[in-house]
Amino acid sequence: MNDRVAPNLISAVDEARHWVRLMEMAELGAIPGPTPEDPGVNRACLTPLDRAARRKLIAWGAEIGLTASVDAMGNLFLRHEGTDPAAAPVLTGSHMDTQPNGGRFDGIWGVLAGLEAVQAIRAAGIATKRPIEIVAWTNEEGGRFAPGCMGSMAWSGFAPPETWDNVTDPDGMTFRAALEEHLAAEADIPRRPLGGRPHAYVEGHIEQGPRLEAEGLDIGIVTGIQGSRWFVVELTGKSDHAGTTPLLLRQDAVQDMVRAINALNILTQDPRDVLRFTVGRIEVSPNTSNSVAERVRFTIDLRHPEKEVLLARGDAITGVVQAAVRGCKVAVTERFHAMPTTFQPEVPAAIERAAAAQGLKAARMPSGAFHDAQFLVPVCPTGMIFVPCRKGVSHHPAEFARPEHLAAGTRVLAAALVDLANG
Amino acid sequence: MNDRVAPNLISAVDEARHWVRLMEMAELGAIPGPTPEDPGVNRACLTPLDRAARRKLIAWGAEIGLTASVDAMGNLFLRHEGTDPAAAPVLTGSHMDTQPNGGRFDGIWGVLAGLEAVQAIRAAGIATKRPIEIVAWTNEEGGRFAPGCMGSMAWSGFAPPETWDNVTDPDGMTFRAALEEHLAAEADIPRRPLGGRPHAYVEGHIEQGPRLEAEGLDIGIVTGIQGSRWFVVELTGKSDHAGTTPLLLRQDAVQDMVRAINALNILTQDPRDVLRFTVGRIEVSPNTSNSVAERVRFTIDLRHPEKEVLLARGDAITGVVQAAVRGCKVAVTERFHAMPTTFQPEVPAAIERAAAAQGLKAARMPSGAFHDAQFLVPVCPTGMIFVPCRKGVSHHPAEFARPEHLAAGTRVLAAALVDLANG
Repeated sequence: MNDRVAPNLISAVDEARHWVRLMEMAELGAIPGPTPEDPGVNRACLTPLDRAARRKLIAWGAEIGLTASVDAMGNLFLRHEGTDPAAAPVLTGSHMDTQPNGGRFDGIWGVLAGLEAVQAIRAAGIATKRPIEIVAWTNEEGGRFAPGCMGSMAWSGFAPPETWDNVTDPDGMTFRAALEEHLAAEADIPRRPLGGRPHAYVEGHIEQGPRLEAEGLDIGIVTGIQGSRWFVVELTGKSDHAGTTPLLLRQDAVQDMVRAINALNILTQDPRDVLRFTVGRIEVSPNTSNSVAERVRFTIDLRHPEKEVLLARGDAITGVVQAAVRGCKVAVTERFHAMPTTFQPEVPAAIERAAAAQGLKAARMPSGAFHDAQFLVPVCPTGMIFVPCRKGVSHHPAEFARPEHLAAGTRVLAAALVDLANG
Repeated sequence: MNDRVAPNLISAVDEARHWVRLMEMAELGAIPGPTPEDPGVNRACLTPLDRAARRKLIAWGAEIGLTASVDAMGNLFLRHEGTDPAAAPVLTGSHMDTQPNGGRFDGIWGVLAGLEAVQAIRAAGIATKRPIEIVAWTNEEGGRFAPGCMGSMAWSGFAPPETWDNVTDPDGMTFRAALEEHLAAEADIPRRPLGGRPHAYVEGHIEQGPRLEAEGLDIGIVTGIQGSRWFVVELTGKSDHAGTTPLLLRQDAVQDMVRAINALNILTQDPRDVLRFTVGRIEVSPNTSNSVAERVRFTIDLRHPEKEVLLARGDAITGVVQAAVRGCKVAVTERFHAMPTTFQPEVPAAIERAAAAQGLKAARMPSGAFHDAQFLVPVCPTGMIFVPCRKGVSHHPAEFARPEHLAAGTRVLAAALVDLANG
C-alpha cells in the first residue's frame, strides 16, 4: 500500500494544461452564459459535437500512448497498460455529454482528470501492476434521451442494452438510430465487448452542491448516492374553445396538472428538507393560448437517501394524482429507478489516504446527484472524488470550479489510482 | 326591403356542391381525428397549405365570374359586381386558417358560405345594387402568430399593420417575413388598398357552443361578442440540479407557476360560470426532468361579456401573480385586448327576417368566441349567422356541422346579402 505521496507524481499534474484542455472542450457546444466569463455548454450525447469531443480526447490520449476502444453502447475507453496486462484494470472517468443549458465542468472534468492523472503517472515514471482505463460513459445526463446513465447501466448489466431502443429525442429520433449512426461514425475505433470486471472504479466530479465551498474543504470523499425514481404523468382531458366552454364543463389538462402538483407537494413534504421533488419538464397539447389543453405530460424526479422513504412516497404517486384530478384520465409511468447506493470501503479509503498525504482538507459525504458510479457498485469497489463548485450551481452555464480545486482533485485521483492499481 | 324570400334563390343554394367544396378544402392540411369519419385540419396562416386553399377559392370564384384582389395584410377578396359599382359593397366572409389541431368548419365555412350564397344569387338571376365582396381574413386563429384577427384588426384600423412585424412563430419566423413571403407568392393577384367603408358586414360561423343543438334551433342571430384579454406571464427563477438543491433554497419556476395559477383560479371564480379563464399554453425552460425550471411562460385567456368585469379581473392579474409567487421574478404582458362588442341592429334584423321568411327556428344570442366581425363594428353595421355544431366542439378534429344545417345557414346568408345589397 502506497501510504505516502510520490512528490514527482504530484508535481507532474499540470494545472495549466488541465485547465486549457477543459476550456478547449468547453468550446464544443459553447452557448452564451450569464456573463462573458461564464459561457455554458450544450453538448448532447451522440451528436456531432459529442463525437468531436471524443475525437479530441482520443487524440490527447494517443499523444501519450493510450489506446482507444469503444463498446456497443458507445462507451469510450483509453487504456494505460499495466505491468500485468492480464490483471483487472482500475477504471476512472465520467461522461462528456451535458445538459441542454449546461456548464463546462459536469462530467467532462472527471474524464479529463483521468487523462491528466494517467499522464502524470506516466510522466513520473510510475509503473502500475494493473492497467488503468479512462472511460467516457454514453448519455449520463439524459437530456436528449431519458433516462440518463444508459451507458453505465448497460455496461454493468443493470439493464439490457436494448432497453432504450425506442426512446426518442425531442426531434423524434430513436436512441437506437442515434447510437447506430454514432457507432458507424466511430467504425475506425477498435470495438471491445460490453461489460467487464474492473478491480475498482473511481469517478471525479464537481460536487453540484454547496457544502465543500461553504465549509472551505478541498475534497469530498463520497460515501454513496441517494436513490432516484423518475415518473412521467400523462393527463388526458378534452380540448375546447377557450371562449365558449363553461369552466364547469371542461376537462382541462392544465388545471388537472395544477391539482396534481398541489397534491404531490403535500405528499412530498419533508420538514428536514432532505427529500427532493422536482417537476422539471411539462409538455402541453395543443399548447395554444385560446384552446383548453387536451393533454399534459409532466415529469417527476423524486430522490431520497433512504430506500424506505423512496419506496413509500414513490409508490403513492399514482393514487395521489388520481385522487387530485377532476376530469382527466391519468397514466403514471415509472421511467427509471435507482435505489440508494453505499460505496464499498476500499475506494473511499484510498481517496482519504491520498487527500491526507497531500495535506488537503477532505470530508466524507453522500452525493445528492446521480452518477454513473452508482451502477458500478455491484461490479467492483467504487468511489467518487468531489471538488468544490461555486455556490453549488450545476446544470447551468454559471457552473464554475476553480483551476486549483480541479488540480487538487486530479492529484488525489492520481495518487488513488496508483494506490488501487498497485494494491 | 326584401321581406319575402325569393324561391329561386333558396333552391339555387346547392347543399351537395357546398358540402363537397368544404370537404375538398378539408383535405388541405388534413390530420387524423378521433375516428376515420372525423379527420381534422391543421392549416396555419401564411403557409403553402393556406395558399393552396386560397388558390382553390380564387379558382371557384373565377368559374362564376368573381374577381380576386389582395391587400397588404394578405386579406383576400372576391368581388361580385353591383348594378351600381360605385356603391359601398356588402362584405361577407370569415377566415381560412385553422388551429393546429383544428376542424373542418371553423372559419372556412363562413368563406365558402359566402361563395355559395353569391353563386346562388347569380344563378337565380338576382341583380344587386351594391357589390358583394367575399373576404378571407388573414390569421384569425392566432395559432401560428398570436394574437388572432390580425387581418381584420389592421383592415379596420384597430391597430397599424406593422404592430405584429416581430411576432414569431414556433420556428422563430417573424410575421413580417411570413407575410412578405406570402405576398410575393401572390404577386400575380391584383393588389387593393388596406381598409374600406362597406355598407355592412355579415359573417357566417359554426356556433362553437352547445346552445343551438341543445335547443333544436337552426340559426343563431348573433347580437355581439364577449370581450377578451390575453396575457403572457413570465416567471424567472433559477435552474438547479434536481438531486442536490434543497427545496427551500430553490427558485423553481414550475412551482411558482402552480402558485400563480392557484391564485388566479381564486381571482377568476364566478358562481354563474360566465367568466372564461384559460391557461392553454405553457413553455418551460430548460424543460428537462432533472433540472429545476429556470423560466416558465404561460398564457392567460380571459373573457367576459361585461366590460367592467373584464377590466377589474384583468387589471388584478399582475398583483395576484406577484403576491402568489415565492422566489421568481414576474413579468406580465397584455398581448391583446378587445372589449365586449354589441352589433348594430341592421344586420341582425336582416338575418332575422331571412330566417323567418324561410321558416327556420332562430334565436338571438351572444358569441362566446372571438371573431373578425368584432373589428368591423366601428366600420359598418355588422352581424353574424351561427349554425349548430355537434356538442359545441370546435378547435378539434371532432368539430362537426351537418350539411343541412350549413345549407340552411347559407340560404339565410344569401337572402340577407340580397336584402342588405339592395337596401
